[in-house]
Amino acid sequence: MSSLARIGISLDRELLAAFDRIIERKGYGSRSEAIRDLVRDHTVQTDIATNKAIVATLTLVYDHRRPRLSEQLIEAQHHYKGKVLATTHVHLDSRNCLEVIILRGKSAEVQHFADHLLSLRGVKHGKLVMTTAGQADSPRHLP
Amino acid sequence: MSSLARIGISLDRELLAAFDRIIERKGYGSRSEAIRDLVRDHTVQTDIATNKAIVATLTLVYDHRRPRLSEQLIEAQHHYKGKVLATTHVHLDSRNCLEVIILRGKSAEVQHFADHLLSLRGVKHGKLVMTTAGQADSPRHLP
Amino acid sequence: MSSLARIGISLDRELLAAFDRIIERKGYGSRSEAIRDLVRDHTVQTDIATNKAIVATLTLVYDHRRPRLSEQLIEAQHHYKGKVLATTHVHLDSRNCLEVIILRGKSAEVQHFADHLLSLRGVKHGKLVMTTAGQADSPRHLP
Amino acid sequence: MSSLARIGISLDRELLAAFDRIIERKGYGSRSEAIRDLVRDHTVQTDIATNKAIVATLTLVYDHRRPRLSEQLIEAQHHYKGKVLATTHVHLDSRNCLEVIILRGKSAEVQHFADHLLSLRGVKHGKLVMTTAGQADSPRHLP
Repeated sequence: MSSLARIGISLDRELLAAFDRIIERKGYGSRSEAIRDLVRDHTVQTDIATNKAIVATLTLVYDHRRPRLSEQLIEAQHHYKGKVLATTHVHLDSRNCLEVIILRGKSAEVQHFADHLLSLRGVKHGKLVMTTAGQADSPRHLP
Repeated sequence: MSSLARIGISLDRELLAAFDRIIERKGYGSRSEAIRDLVRDHTVQTDIATNKAIVATLTLVYDHRRPRLSEQLIEAQHHYKGKVLATTHVHLDSRNCLEVIILRGKSAEVQHFADHLLSLRGVKHGKLVMTTAGQADSPRHLP
Repeated sequence: MSSLARIGISLDRELLAAFDRIIERKGYGSRSEAIRDLVRDHTVQTDIATNKAIVATLTLVYDHRRPRLSEQLIEAQHHYKGKVLATTHVHLDSRNCLEVIILRGKSAEVQHFADHLLSLRGVKHGKLVMTTAGQADSPRHLP
Repeated sequence: MSSLARIGISLDRELLAAFDRIIERKGYGSRSEAIRDLVRDHTVQTDIATNKAIVATLTLVYDHRRPRLSEQLIEAQHHYKGKVLATTHVHLDSRNCLEVIILRGKSAEVQHFADHLLSLRGVKHGKLVMTTAGQADSPRHLP
């Protein structure tokens, strides 16, 4: 179980005032919350750069009328070395589908999988987002 | 209905050779396909910068034990000015949830919505991906 | 003259431990220093998004043998609405030059200027970096 | 010496029309030029990801009144394993300096060097840009 630490930091009054204006506009309830998000994002970016286990979402837009594309997408997910946690499909219009694939794996294998899917004929656009696998908070309970 | 145009481009042989090596490694079947993806990504980035209608996926990781957070997330989605197309939820571990919210709207309102959700107490990490709403390909058939 | 404020923030012990490992590897002398950098980067990104006055560096790689390119680059700098502070030129090889142009201006006009230079025939690659104009720290002393 | 190759690509008419509108606004003289830039940027991003030799510019904003910072910056440049090609210094205001350091090296060592400088006490903000070392075009003439 994780517990809270309290730390003190010092920074220029004017920088702090500028930061306060931003976080108020974004809707943060406290500086602690906003700074925590910056710290967490920084650690996630580092996990990605050092090939740690991460969770990712891959967003794809594709033309469902492209022959064999649906099978290729499914086949690729079954051959993926990591774990596909869930897939969501939305019909954007008569022709375009949006699919979000939620993955677990090391950042390099996730990137490789995403590159492969994005290269398929008929896949028009896509972006990969990597985020925390949750370990930092409860390492003993990861599936 | 959209039809295909064929265009010719000239580029340095050595640049082309470097590009060929990359797209082969990524698994592209042809240069046309790979260049199409670059062109499409460029137009999507421009749509985002000019506040056009786009489709987005917002990935959030949050602590489901934080009091009232689930209600706040649902309430925010009901008040969102654009359209929430679908939401997918994955249980990462005993404490952390990952949620993917698929949205339609203008890029500025999507960004504002994402900022709000990311600022909520208990939301630990998140990233917003914006992609094409599909109009470029079949403008008459958008929902 | 700016003075220091001291604030307290609370965050998960395990997140803090992960952050400490990262900043030690990067060479930071203290958490305060590392968090200050995250806060400052966040305010700079917001200044950029809201078209505030910023300072930018534009890095260009170009082929100096392209007819008229050098004149076009100089002409563009003279017509730029903001202020060009300095330009540095490096000869990469017999054919390629790297040039760094340091600019002051509002983020939108800086972006427009960069787009124009990057579009010139013979300019092969380039990237724009926007940073703080320094106001947050000493608003009365800006040139 | 590099020579030109001419290739044909096919893409949706509507995607092409959207792209044409963008490149006209950005000032490109031709589609070839605009697509060449996309292809080159893609190969540069790949060089960065695979630790190839690249050229980089590191932009720093720092407080010149911080004791010993100037010496630390110079010392770090002398100990850098790659090559520092040039440094440009601009006085932003009575307190803040902007410095651009132009470097050659493998992407990982450039990143490490940048991390170190950005971590120094008194360095307020900074960004690293990596670009082509020029090899793709004239591999035999690299210094």
